[in-house]
Amino acid sequence: MNDASVPPEDPAAGDPAAGGPAAGGPAGAARRAVEALYADDRAAQALGIEMLEVAPGHVRVAMTVRPDMLNGHGTCHGGFLFALADTAFAYACNSHGQAMVAAGASIEFLAPCAGGERLIATASETSRAARHGIYDVAVAKDSGELRAHFRGRCARLRVPSATP
Amino acid sequence: MNDASVPPEDPAAGDPAAGGPAAGGPAGAARRAVEALYADDRAAQALGIEMLEVAPGHVRVAMTVRPDMLNGHGTCHGGFLFALADTAFAYACNSHGQAMVAAGASIEFLAPCAGGERLIATASETSRAARHGIYDVAVAKDSGELRAHFRGRCARLRVPSATP
Amino acid sequence: MNDASVPPEDPAAGDPAAGGPAAGGPAGAARRAVEALYADDRAAQALGIEMLEVAPGHVRVAMTVRPDMLNGHGTCHGGFLFALADTAFAYACNSHGQAMVAAGASIEFLAPCAGGERLIATASETSRAARHGIYDVAVAKDSGELRAHFRGRCARLRVPSATP
Amino acid sequence: MNDASVPPEDPAAGDPAAGGPAAGGPAGAARRAVEALYADDRAAQALGIEMLEVAPGHVRVAMTVRPDMLNGHGTCHGGFLFALADTAFAYACNSHGQAMVAAGASIEFLAPCAGGERLIATASETSRAARHGIYDVAVAKDSGELRAHFRGRCARLRVPSATP
Repeated sequence: MNDASVPPEDPAAGDPAAGGPAAGGPAGAARRAVEALYADDRAAQALGIEMLEVAPGHVRVAMTVRPDMLNGHGTCHGGFLFALADTAFAYACNSHGQAMVAAGASIEFLAPCAGGERLIATASETSRAARHGIYDVAVAKDSGELRAHFRGRCARLRVPSATP
Repeated sequence: MNDASVPPEDPAAGDPAAGGPAAGGPAGAARRAVEALYADDRAAQALGIEMLEVAPGHVRVAMTVRPDMLNGHGTCHGGFLFALADTAFAYACNSHGQAMVAAGASIEFLAPCAGGERLIATASETSRAARHGIYDVAVAKDSGELRAHFRGRCARLRVPSATP
Repeated sequence: MNDASVPPEDPAAGDPAAGGPAAGGPAGAARRAVEALYADDRAAQALGIEMLEVAPGHVRVAMTVRPDMLNGHGTCHGGFLFALADTAFAYACNSHGQAMVAAGASIEFLAPCAGGERLIATASETSRAARHGIYDVAVAKDSGELRAHFRGRCARLRVPSATP
Repeated sequence: MNDASVPPEDPAAGDPAAGGPAAGGPAGAARRAVEALYADDRAAQALGIEMLEVAPGHVRVAMTVRPDMLNGHGTCHGGFLFALADTAFAYACNSHGQAMVAAGASIEFLAPCAGGERLIATASETSRAARHGIYDVAVAKDSGELRAHFRGRCARLRVPSATP
C-alpha cells in the first residue's frame, strides 16, 4: 500500500514503539488489518488498485481503466469494474480483524466506463453479524458520477476449510 | 481467438469465399459474431481467456488462474472469477448478432480456486426477449467440480447512447 | 391509505381548493402519487400494509405478521417479507410521478420473524436515471432490529406494453 | 396438500403399513418431507398454493392470481409472484430431509401477470453442498409462457438458533 495515499488519521499506527493491538484504536486496527491483506493481494496490485481510506467497515479504493481492461465495445470490461468493487468489499469486511470471505455479490452497471477514467469504489457496511455481513459499494468517477452499484455478502472464514 | 480451440462445427466460417450472413446457418453466424467481439476484446485476451465453443445463446470459455490473480487469502480474486463468467455471458448474449450490453449480474462463490487451476465457464440462455435477456453461467474446474454460479442480465445496446 | 398515519407534512395536499400539480411542492406531489397508487393496490391493503411516510424517493410502510403469513418453520414466510419490502420499493420509485415497474429485486434474510411482529420497511433511492432506478429497502422490527435487506431495480413503464 | 394433485409415483408413501424412512426410496422420502412441511405451512395454504410434483431437489407448485393479489397497476403484486417461487424453492431445498432455511434470493420479472392467471413454479437444484444450496425457479403460465426467474440460496438450519 502506498502509505502516502492513506490519510494519516492514526499516526501511531506506523510507530513500532506504539505496538499492541489497541494502538490507534479501532481505526488503527482496521488500517493494519487491511494493510496486511493488501500486502499479500497480488491481484489488487496487478490491477493498479490504490488504497485511499480505511476505517472499520468502510474502505475507499481507486483504479484507473487501462487499455487492457477494455472489452469489444471499447468500454471497461465488467469484470474489472466488479474486481474494483469486490476489492473494496473484501477490505471493508475484513477491516474488523476477523477473516471473512465473499460468499456472493451482485452488481448493477449504470453507465459504461471509458479507458483512462479514474474510478473510486466506496464500501460501507450495511449489516454485520458474527458470521455474516452485507456491504454496499458505489463505484463512481472522480467527478462523482456513478458507474455501478455492488452489494456483497461475506461469511466468516472456516478453518481449515476455506469454503464459504 | 485461437481457431484451433473452436470445434470445427462450421468449416465454411473460416472460408472468406463462403462469406454471406447465412454461411453456416445460425451456428456459423453465432461464431462469427462472437469472433468479431473477441477480436476487439483486449480485456479477455489479457486475461488469457480462450474460446472453447460457440453456438447461439451458448458459449464455453476457459481461463487458467495466474499468480497475479491471487488475493490476500492466496486464492483467486473474485473479480477474476467474475470476469471469466462475465465474458462467457457477454459472448452468449451477443451471439445472436444483436448488440447487447450487461445491465447487471450476480455471482455465488461455491469454493475457492487455487493458482494454476484451469476454469471453464459455460453460459446458457435462460430467457431472451427483444430487448432483454437472462443468462446463467456455471464456472467449474476441468474436472467438473463447481466453483461459482453467475446470472447475468443484458439489455439491447441503444444507439448512440451506450448506457444500459 | 389511512390519512392519520401520514405525517401532516403538507397540509395543503388534502385541500381541494389548493389543487394543481404544484400544491405542496415535491413532497406533496410524492404523497399524492403514492396515495393514488395505494388506493388501487388491493394486494397492499389485503396484506394490512400501512403507509407511515412518503417523500420523493423515500417511503416507510409497516405490516404486522399475521398467523396466515407463517410458514412450516413457524416463522414469517419469505414471500410476505418480500411483499412488504417490494411495496415500499414500488411506492418510492413511483413517488416522482412517472410510472415505473419493478424489473427485478434481491433480498437477504437476516433473521426469522415471528408471528405478531410489527415490521417497518424503509425505502431509499440509491440511483435514479430517466428510465431506470435502484432502491434499497431495510426491513426492521419496531425496535430497529434488522430482519432483511432488499434491493429493487425498476424501469419506466412503456405504453401500451407493460412488460418491464 | 391435495393428495390427488401429486403424481402417484410412490404408492407406498400413503400406506401407513409401509412406514419406515426408506419406504418409496428417495422420491418417497422427498414427498414425505415436503408434505410434512406443507401441512404446517399456513402461508402457502392461505395463498392457495397447490403441490403438483415433488422429487429430491425438484418441486412444482401452482397458484392462481386472485383479485386480492393485484397491485395499483392492476397486475399481480411482485410479492405474490415471489411468494410462489419462494415456496417452490423452500420445498425443493428441504426435500432431502435436512432442515434448510432461505438465506436470500433474487427475482427477475419478465412480464406482468393478470388476475385469474394460473401460474406454475418449477424449482430445480443448481448446486447443493452440506451446508448450502442454490435453487433456480422458473415461474410460467399454464401455457408455458415465462413470467419470472428466481434464484434462491439456502443454508442449513442451526439449532437452536434459526438465524440463517
